[in-house]
Formats: sequence, structure tokens, C-alpha cells
Amino acid sequence: MWKAEIHVTLKDAVLDPQGKAVRSVLGSLGYSAVEKVRIGKYLEMVLNVDSRAEAERQLDEICHRVLANPVIEQYDYQLVEVPR
Amino acid sequence: MWKAEIHVTLKDAVLDPQGKAVRSVLGSLGYSAVEKVRIGKYLEMVLNVDSRAEAERQLDEICHRVLANPVIEQYDYQLVEVPR
Repeated sequence: MWKAEIHVTLKDAVLDPQGKAVRSVLGSLGYSAVEKVRIGKYLEMVLNVDSRAEAERQLDEICHRVLANPVIEQYDYQLVEVPR
Repeated sequence: MWKAEIHVTLKDAVLDPQGKAVRSVLGSLGYSAVEKVRIGKYLEMVLNVDSRAEAERQLDEICHRVLANPVIEQYDYQLVEVPR
């Protein structure tokens, strides 16, 4: 079994209105030191497969097809083996 | 300047209907190896402060007051110094 920690983030060139909104709220609350906010998605996923290679194959498919919009988003993940 | 990578996740005891929905969709797409999905928030934030201690002080406040609901969510972050 493999546990994946997946990050899906907007590509650098893509504007992040949600992040801008959070930054603006933080500014109005007095946190003027906050200069930049970018918001992404975070997922933890457990895959019941035997090999790291098979986990990576499925994760790449899942991220590309389902979790991320490849036009504006990028993804990465870390994999760790967990006891069954 | 300090860059923070922040994760806000549901506490383990809290049900995650969004994660369940994603798992169900993945199952219906043929990814039956996916056994568990938990979904959280991921933020990158740049703070214009001089010391790590001050960055941590502000981040703990921001996470506790704004980003996370401390009743059902937990947060953690990694800090790295970035050139001004």
C-alpha cells in the first residue's frame, strides 16, 4: 500500500483571485506583512497496489484526468509505503 | 522574507464527505485501488518579516483565526527564508 500526498497548484502564470482575496482579508485584519498568497488543493490518498511504479502510473493518470486541469494547473506528489 | 507552505486538514476523527465523493468518482472510473481520500487546503504565503520567530507568530495567528476552523481542522506549515 502506498500513501500519496498530492498538491495541485495553479501554474505560476495564472492569476489566483482566491489567493488575492485571502491576502486582502489578511491585510484588512492587520497582517500587512503578508505579501503574496497562492491557494491550491491538497489531497491524501491511499492506493492498494504493490509497487511504487504502479502507484505512480495510476496517480499520474488520476492527477491528469481528474484532479488537475492541465491547462492552468500543475501537480506533484510524494509517495510513501505504508503497512497493509 | 519567509515563504510558508501551509496545510490545513480535517482532524482524523472528522468525516470527509468531499474525500468520499472523490474516492467514489475514482472508483467509478476504474481506479479501484484507491482506498482512502482525504482533502485539505494548501496555501503558499510570503511574509515580509525579518525573523523566523516573527513569521511563526503571525502564521500561527493567521492559521488559527482565519485559515483553519480549530474545532474540526488542524494545520501545519514549513517555513523557508527567501531572498528579499
